[in-house]
Amino acid sequence: MSELPGIVITGASGRMGQMLIKTVVASDKCKLVGVVERAGHDWIGRDIGEAMGGAALGVTVTDDALDAFAKAQAVIDFTAPAATIAFAGLAAQARCVHVIGTTGMTEEDLAKITAAARHATIIRAGNMSLGVNLLTKLTKMVSAALDADYDIEIIEAHHNRKVDAPSGTALMLGEAAAEGRGVKLEEVRDSGRDGITGARKPGDIGFSAIRGGDIVGEHDVMFAGEGERIILRHVASDRSLFAKGALKAALWGQGKKPGEYDMLDVLGL
Amino acid sequence: MSELPGIVITGASGRMGQMLIKTVVASDKCKLVGVVERAGHDWIGRDIGEAMGGAALGVTVTDDALDAFAKAQAVIDFTAPAATIAFAGLAAQARCVHVIGTTGMTEEDLAKITAAARHATIIRAGNMSLGVNLLTKLTKMVSAALDADYDIEIIEAHHNRKVDAPSGTALMLGEAAAEGRGVKLEEVRDSGRDGITGARKPGDIGFSAIRGGDIVGEHDVMFAGEGERIILRHVASDRSLFAKGALKAALWGQGKKPGEYDMLDVLGL
Amino acid sequence: MSELPGIVITGASGRMGQMLIKTVVASDKCKLVGVVERAGHDWIGRDIGEAMGGAALGVTVTDDALDAFAKAQAVIDFTAPAATIAFAGLAAQARCVHVIGTTGMTEEDLAKITAAARHATIIRAGNMSLGVNLLTKLTKMVSAALDADYDIEIIEAHHNRKVDAPSGTALMLGEAAAEGRGVKLEEVRDSGRDGITGARKPGDIGFSAIRGGDIVGEHDVMFAGEGERIILRHVASDRSLFAKGALKAALWGQGKKPGEYDMLDVLGL
Amino acid sequence: MSELPGIVITGASGRMGQMLIKTVVASDKCKLVGVVERAGHDWIGRDIGEAMGGAALGVTVTDDALDAFAKAQAVIDFTAPAATIAFAGLAAQARCVHVIGTTGMTEEDLAKITAAARHATIIRAGNMSLGVNLLTKLTKMVSAALDADYDIEIIEAHHNRKVDAPSGTALMLGEAAAEGRGVKLEEVRDSGRDGITGARKPGDIGFSAIRGGDIVGEHDVMFAGEGERIILRHVASDRSLFAKGALKAALWGQGKKPGEYDMLDVLGL
Repeated sequence: MSELPGIVITGASGRMGQMLIKTVVASDKCKLVGVVERAGHDWIGRDIGEAMGGAALGVTVTDDALDAFAKAQAVIDFTAPAATIAFAGLAAQARCVHVIGTTGMTEEDLAKITAAARHATIIRAGNMSLGVNLLTKLTKMVSAALDADYDIEIIEAHHNRKVDAPSGTALMLGEAAAEGRGVKLEEVRDSGRDGITGARKPGDIGFSAIRGGDIVGEHDVMFAGEGERIILRHVASDRSLFAKGALKAALWGQGKKPGEYDMLDVLGL
Repeated sequence: MSELPGIVITGASGRMGQMLIKTVVASDKCKLVGVVERAGHDWIGRDIGEAMGGAALGVTVTDDALDAFAKAQAVIDFTAPAATIAFAGLAAQARCVHVIGTTGMTEEDLAKITAAARHATIIRAGNMSLGVNLLTKLTKMVSAALDADYDIEIIEAHHNRKVDAPSGTALMLGEAAAEGRGVKLEEVRDSGRDGITGARKPGDIGFSAIRGGDIVGEHDVMFAGEGERIILRHVASDRSLFAKGALKAALWGQGKKPGEYDMLDVLGL
Repeated sequence: MSELPGIVITGASGRMGQMLIKTVVASDKCKLVGVVERAGHDWIGRDIGEAMGGAALGVTVTDDALDAFAKAQAVIDFTAPAATIAFAGLAAQARCVHVIGTTGMTEEDLAKITAAARHATIIRAGNMSLGVNLLTKLTKMVSAALDADYDIEIIEAHHNRKVDAPSGTALMLGEAAAEGRGVKLEEVRDSGRDGITGARKPGDIGFSAIRGGDIVGEHDVMFAGEGERIILRHVASDRSLFAKGALKAALWGQGKKPGEYDMLDVLGL
Repeated sequence: MSELPGIVITGASGRMGQMLIKTVVASDKCKLVGVVERAGHDWIGRDIGEAMGGAALGVTVTDDALDAFAKAQAVIDFTAPAATIAFAGLAAQARCVHVIGTTGMTEEDLAKITAAARHATIIRAGNMSLGVNLLTKLTKMVSAALDADYDIEIIEAHHNRKVDAPSGTALMLGEAAAEGRGVKLEEVRDSGRDGITGARKPGDIGFSAIRGGDIVGEHDVMFAGEGERIILRHVASDRSLFAKGALKAALWGQGKKPGEYDMLDVLGL
């Protein structure tokens, strides 16, 4: 038997959901077997291809996630924390790999994901791109190599529809920088600088969030010393980058034993 | 008689004060005739050259500003709002040109400066560089040419000792952008973005403040639309730029009738 | 009654034609009323939405340009010189605005367009991006405002399939910079710097061409002086940019008297 | 007793020597205990602070290098090959760390340094900037991690008096990138792109050289793939950078056993 792995996409009507659907449909390494939206959404019961304004794809949008997951080998999920936690339980029940790109989760949310990973294969990352994950590694290295005379600033830019700041990826880079220095990010994080702030506190990690137009995602990690700056920069120019990374994770996860994985595992870095 | 104009520098011990002193001393178009520090400062009574760790310059640091101003044709003043307002009165009394680079002034402070300008020649600018003033003009033009589909973001970076955010220059650029659109900056200003902010409000002008190392001053005005961005960028790489601009203003002000001027007047833009 | 302006797209089956159709359909400031293809094309008689592989749009592809133009307020035309010249006559007859993005026209072709513009409103540009046209204008202005102590460098980046360097747009920006200074670009152009070049010649305009990945198009015009730099930067992130510029031109042209206009007119610069 | 390490500077009257002296004096991690000039120099016997035109520093310029080295824990030496080779022997005799920033050494000279390092702790680098050395290391790593689908471009910017292109540092970065990929730079180097070049050759490493104003030195290593770019960037804003790197090396060398080290050792990479 050489069936292609079946993939379910959640949050089907969203910008990222639609990109994931197109990426799965375009791939010759898997097939789309389900799309999920929340109960009451307009698209429920419609063919997903037609709902997206194109040709029919033969897959109907459903609000019964468990039923969809039960027919699949993996679910790719870029939704919101509450939905993702619920999906984690259902994916474990359905024994399918759960790829999580949802951001904005609290410590409590993450604990629930970790609990679910005792019985399920979960791959979770704040950012699914090869480049960003490489940048995370470099950030930790450089942060460890340079002393605290180098001020660390993380600057990110995204489109004008993004609702949170700093981005999940910026925080992931901040965690890496803090880890490199042996400190906790929450103790040195300085975001939302505004007004009479006083001089920069040595050891702080600063964050700036730029919002405008349709910027896909740009991240700079700046190490600013006296007389020099080192800047590690990532520019995403195509949203399908993240969808491709998520799909790569879903395929990599096939046959892996239960546990919580990240993109460094997937990329073998 | 062909005496060179005599210049007084206030805030003599500060980083900017020392740069101004060096710039005046190095110029062949004026001479240093006085340096002022606050009462009680260590340097009072010492030769300014020696206090700065160099050779004597024959000028003694004083806390008697009026006496110093009375012997000068211009005072260059990058201090703090309260001091600057007091200096404005003294400069009017001494009939010398008052060049003001002080930032962080409130509406009330500015009203006092305007009042002083009825009897004195005051040149005031948030930034004394040719490039920044040119950028201000361009910002207003582009802002007027593009509709509100282009999100305006102003990003600035400065050294880690800067105590306020956004910079005075960033706010000056923001004013120019708002003026180009026919709106008031205070109604559209969005600085200190942090947390769950919701989607960017159309028409807002966003500000980001980066702090690190010894960055002299960098300003970006970004107009981000769908599919394209225009960025107007200024990079200052040498603090003496501002000192040179201030000195140019002091010399330009000689013989000008009382009033409030800015660098666009000085540069003839 | 306040009907939205009706737009016709020519060359409907091409890459640019399809992008124009999508742009018009997505806009709430106009409506698609006709699409034209050459006689004999497969798509003639079909619904354009379905022909493009999506949902029906209620507009049938036709080879009768005059009939289509007669029902419209504007035609947007990125085809080939011979077709464009024919369309110019038909658009004049139908009294609809003719927006021309066609390139590769000879002096003779251009003379025919100019003749047609005696009786028709024609807007023509080699590059329909608002941002690039604005940048060209700014470049000339800044170049005129600054003296030759400011070194001008033009840096562009494009995808790895581009076969020429510097880009046509970089050269257009270089022409604007040279014009601002009152010099000829061919006398000051310095491209392909490599090896022992000697110190930079004052007054030169330098060009650098970066090639990599899928970069859509980025252009920097840098004015580098002592202690400061001004950089005018354009980033194109989506090829639909040109379609959007063309649509803006079509809407701007409504009610304008006959004549030949360009994107600077549209921008009001 | 926990005395600060004492540092000797050679070539005290030169541009680099004076910068090193200022850097040591400004540091709170070491103290200046000696300055050396060649026999017969004007400054011999004078206080070094006064000789440099400032306040006295309590250290007299000497031509007796061994005597100076014997009272120190480290000597920092940016002079000329012959002097440096002699100093290496004296530093070994005085058991003090020898930091060498001297350039232009022949293979034969280098062999002598290696011989001296059998009995002495020597740290030598062609470029003492921490950031540039770190960037070189990162470039090699990223180049090895990414496949040839990522196009490598190296872009550098320097002041308008620089006579060669690309910069030595850009070529050093290019060597690191080539090494990471297991290729030879001379086989893939593409510099001076101009005219009808054809599409970019996969595997090439491109170079661009920007020249203008007083730019101290900026280097970008760009890895451009489909949908994303990673950029490693170094900005030098102050020539004292090299002095600071040398001082860091001198302090790092304390207590290290004899041998020849470089800046990567100092950085712990």
